[in-house]
Amino acid sequence: MKKQRPLILVTNDDGITAPGIIALVSVMKTLGDVVVVAPDRPQSGMGHAITINSTLRLHKTKTHGIKEEYSCSGTPVDCVKFAVNKILKRKPDLCVSGINHGSNMSINVIYSGTMSAAVEGAIESIPSIGFSLNNYSHDADFMATKKIVATIAKNVLKNGLPKDVCLNVNIPNVKSSEIKGIKVCRQARANWVEELDERHDPSGRPYYWLTGKFVNFEKDKKDTDVWANENNYVSVVPTQFDMTAHKAIKDIGNRWEKAKSK
Amino acid sequence: MKKQRPLILVTNDDGITAPGIIALVSVMKTLGDVVVVAPDRPQSGMGHAITINSTLRLHKTKTHGIKEEYSCSGTPVDCVKFAVNKILKRKPDLCVSGINHGSNMSINVIYSGTMSAAVEGAIESIPSIGFSLNNYSHDADFMATKKIVATIAKNVLKNGLPKDVCLNVNIPNVKSSEIKGIKVCRQARANWVEELDERHDPSGRPYYWLTGKFVNFEKDKKDTDVWANENNYVSVVPTQFDMTAHKAIKDIGNRWEKAKSK
Repeated sequence: MKKQRPLILVTNDDGITAPGIIALVSVMKTLGDVVVVAPDRPQSGMGHAITINSTLRLHKTKTHGIKEEYSCSGTPVDCVKFAVNKILKRKPDLCVSGINHGSNMSINVIYSGTMSAAVEGAIESIPSIGFSLNNYSHDADFMATKKIVATIAKNVLKNGLPKDVCLNVNIPNVKSSEIKGIKVCRQARANWVEELDERHDPSGRPYYWLTGKFVNFEKDKKDTDVWANENNYVSVVPTQFDMTAHKAIKDIGNRWEKAKSK
Repeated sequence: MKKQRPLILVTNDDGITAPGIIALVSVMKTLGDVVVVAPDRPQSGMGHAITINSTLRLHKTKTHGIKEEYSCSGTPVDCVKFAVNKILKRKPDLCVSGINHGSNMSINVIYSGTMSAAVEGAIESIPSIGFSLNNYSHDADFMATKKIVATIAKNVLKNGLPKDVCLNVNIPNVKSSEIKGIKVCRQARANWVEELDERHDPSGRPYYWLTGKFVNFEKDKKDTDVWANENNYVSVVPTQFDMTAHKAIKDIGNRWEKAKSK
């Protein structure tokens, strides 16, 4: 019997026509049979949002020149749900999301539609990877990332991933010859110090743009994704959807025991 | 010097006029000075989405009869960002979100706007709690939850929370006399088996509603939030925003070391 080619689901959060997903599809085509289900417009910052208060549309497209590609009016997580529950005839062997225009390191994992799609893949027990390039420009050189994307995807296709874990891959914005290697690491503790940029509409009423500055609280820590990228390594963070702070269960549990015994 | 009353930020994802947030504000008023910043319409299932591709509006309201209350056109996480970066003069002593109309146990923590607001509070180093009542009805008896909400909020105001941890509190939908107590536990491993409910618009074109069935993979495990609620306990899950699967770092790291040495 002929060995079945791997089935690979591709999605992103920048929309189905973004250069990043075009590069990703072109790599995945060399590794297996590709199905694309991606948002019909940019969905950056959508995190793990799903569409439950309104309806969804799905359209066949010809953006990537493959047999099965669809644009969806929903979020990146909606796209994975559509693929798994409506479009694909079997569970894919790999789900890849990206390549994101801009980094998704550190706390950005939680705001990122790209990574949320990969996390949704993991929830569905599909080996899943989110790829991001640390360059926000539309003209970013995604082709330079192809080799590293192929290396990591092939490894995951061959070896799978631990249960309930996906990968958050961030690629530094340098020539491929300058990349020093891959570092498997943890998400840095950081946040955004936001500014609500106030402007006024033609009637004089205020409106706001959310904008901010990324602040890394762990600049000196060498085991983080931010450090890896700053030092020209590709960062790979194993990422899980169990948000339980297991270490805190005992301490917090003791509080109620104490309160009861009073 | 007179002791300062605690400053409490209240938000939710069902919108500023929902019965759940009205109950929550009424409890918080007894514990401190309350500021409300909540979405101007339902934002269920928005997860950790933020608004970066469009503008935001903020309006003063008089829904809760307090001095400082605002409705925001954004997501629950946007509301917390507005409060922290634009509205509040100092960091609040407590951020509470809810009371959600419906449970946010298990994997729902990641889809929930209510919990994402609490997680955003934790990212901002504010002791934060998301409250949910396991009853989706608009007429749910939120008043019955007041005692338990006050108990948990008072405890957190007094003792704080571990660094980078917030609480996911789910209250069973039973009379307060039937509640057996509080169980500090972990999120159950579960997912949604979705159906894309296909309908047709007046022009005959298909559209879809996302709908599904919750499937708990750990029905026999007594240390989960789902078990606690099914057995009339209030579940309290310490919840973190570090999504790193720390246990997987070493194993996955070995892969690239091995690949390199070939």
